[in-house]
Amino acid sequence: MIRRVSDQASPAAGPKASSQSAWRPIDGSGRLLRLQQWIGTDRCDDAAVAALLVTDLVNVRYLTGFTGSNAALLVPIVGVPLLFTDSRYAERAADELAAHGARVELRISKTGKAQIAAIKGRLRGQTMGLESSHVSWAAAEAWKADGLDVKPVVSAVERLRRTKDEGEIDRLTKACAIADEALAEVLGLLRSGPTEGEFAKELERAMERRGSEAPSFATIVASGPNASRPHHATGDRRIGPGDQVIIDFGATVDGYHSDMTRTVHVGEPTKAQRRHFQVVRQAQAAGVATVKAGVPIKQVDRACREVIAAAGWADHFSHGTGHGIGLVIHESPWIGSRVKGRLAIGDVVTVEPGVYLPGKGGVRVEDSVLVTATGN
Amino acid sequence: MIRRVSDQASPAAGPKASSQSAWRPIDGSGRLLRLQQWIGTDRCDDAAVAALLVTDLVNVRYLTGFTGSNAALLVPIVGVPLLFTDSRYAERAADELAAHGARVELRISKTGKAQIAAIKGRLRGQTMGLESSHVSWAAAEAWKADGLDVKPVVSAVERLRRTKDEGEIDRLTKACAIADEALAEVLGLLRSGPTEGEFAKELERAMERRGSEAPSFATIVASGPNASRPHHATGDRRIGPGDQVIIDFGATVDGYHSDMTRTVHVGEPTKAQRRHFQVVRQAQAAGVATVKAGVPIKQVDRACREVIAAAGWADHFSHGTGHGIGLVIHESPWIGSRVKGRLAIGDVVTVEPGVYLPGKGGVRVEDSVLVTATGN
Repeated sequence: MIRRVSDQASPAAGPKASSQSAWRPIDGSGRLLRLQQWIGTDRCDDAAVAALLVTDLVNVRYLTGFTGSNAALLVPIVGVPLLFTDSRYAERAADELAAHGARVELRISKTGKAQIAAIKGRLRGQTMGLESSHVSWAAAEAWKADGLDVKPVVSAVERLRRTKDEGEIDRLTKACAIADEALAEVLGLLRSGPTEGEFAKELERAMERRGSEAPSFATIVASGPNASRPHHATGDRRIGPGDQVIIDFGATVDGYHSDMTRTVHVGEPTKAQRRHFQVVRQAQAAGVATVKAGVPIKQVDRACREVIAAAGWADHFSHGTGHGIGLVIHESPWIGSRVKGRLAIGDVVTVEPGVYLPGKGGVRVEDSVLVTATGN
Repeated sequence: MIRRVSDQASPAAGPKASSQSAWRPIDGSGRLLRLQQWIGTDRCDDAAVAALLVTDLVNVRYLTGFTGSNAALLVPIVGVPLLFTDSRYAERAADELAAHGARVELRISKTGKAQIAAIKGRLRGQTMGLESSHVSWAAAEAWKADGLDVKPVVSAVERLRRTKDEGEIDRLTKACAIADEALAEVLGLLRSGPTEGEFAKELERAMERRGSEAPSFATIVASGPNASRPHHATGDRRIGPGDQVIIDFGATVDGYHSDMTRTVHVGEPTKAQRRHFQVVRQAQAAGVATVKAGVPIKQVDRACREVIAAAGWADHFSHGTGHGIGLVIHESPWIGSRVKGRLAIGDVVTVEPGVYLPGKGGVRVEDSVLVTATGN
């Protein structure tokens, strides 16, 4: 079996390997510098901290390249950041830091207490920011009990992560291309009557053969009446003629996610199904057309909702219009009717309106869109 | 391709389906009652709360059966608990609650504000406990800003989850059996020189064919020099003659995880490798033999460490000895030298000593052990 896999691996691994070398570099060193600058400004939550302790593992990976499960990164306004982990990760952390290219000092702590002592030693009584959206209430209280002066800081690293650099865009593009091609490969299988789960599995394997590290999230295949559930759990229902099938899925490349949704009909759609699809398709196109640097984010949401409301289905579009995408499948910026702020160059967002008609079915269409200097 | 999968599915799906019907039931309704009793006692963190808001998604699933990604469960000391989610999950939540069998009222909230208002209405000024190890510092502050009187509660649901009921033991047993059988199936492939990644993939597929929902965690295959890293990231290294190979993996059945590690040699081990393996094997056996109800947890750790220290490798066993396992791969109780408390009937824990010799290789052996009335 391994032999078979090895044989097949050449064409599959080929594109991955070649694209990898063609990818533009990730700006590993610039990220920490930008974070240090940000912490040093008073726009940073008015927190007036001397250092930020980054404990969210995705944020640690973004800043240092380290992918282990135990990590705390102390980023002072001035000086070299310290990455704390335990001995399990000593070798891996050193390798990943070197590959990432950021200047970080690695500290292997034997115990949590040793780590706290090292952090205290570095701070010398100055205030430390904690990532308050990630650190637990109990952990914040424990830092206080340990005698540290801590203040909440929100979205310091997430703010940086929102703007994708060239290396990130290449990886996201590749993840989207893998998903696209994988669906094209397996779509015909729907005619042979697979269950939702079987089809999802084939789709995931087709992505894997093209170099996806893992499905971006649990693939959603929602068919027939199940399509009326926006977040249906893919199950044992057998897909058959006349079904609307919502397929919501993505690939992962070097940690970067893609996220797309297609709704297809098995056999000839009815007139009602065709209209249902067209309305959502038009809503999605209207949303995508709005995506431009400087545009208020809620305008993208409004563009989608207006088309759907005009069709009389305002109450059947029951979720947000989209979200940022990167190292995490859902990240800043969020696209909704109450969101403040504007789109900016380097944002990568999904646009994914849907209309769900209970007992009948559902349609959702989703693409990821990059905001560029000239449009999207 | 679907057809091929369907054909192969019969023998694989068979055992799953038949075991599923043979599984003893999960005690869905008893869990919430036990939690309500616990909240009502002053042993519960001296918190004196009128209700606990359960927001950890695993804890919500444990108590209600609901598996969606947006959930908050208000559990009052007296009365029917309320499960809050949003409209995406309206149908799925109703189905899953019904299947789980616990008495819970489902509330679909249009917005976060509506949810807060509903919770306030139910509390009428009384104190609410928050799961302080899960809720973020920012979220706790937001609840306070919304005018709620909140207190931290630690490990209320985790405490219940530690003791597995019959239905859980059946699912854990099945997850272990799947992992066992899958490894037996693919082990011979090591001789054909796969990369670590290829072998991991074959092992994961063999588990999937036996009914595993997903790998319990990213399968670790660490060969040759990589075996000296306790948490090596499975990579492209080709496995060859003379290698020690650490294989750390598990299956998932109905959300319940298994976790096992085997170390194998490709070809004949050297005398040094043989001794290395024997020491860890004996350490693991000594640890497992210690697992009994009433035994101090740190005694299991000590039993393993004594054998390894006697061989002169005390400094090369650099991680904890084990952990509880259930709906989460790592959960209470933790097995280490400083852990307080004793083992109790219904605990399911791993025992996994290892010895890592930098530049040479590593050995780890791990099994999951159930504490019973008569031993393990």
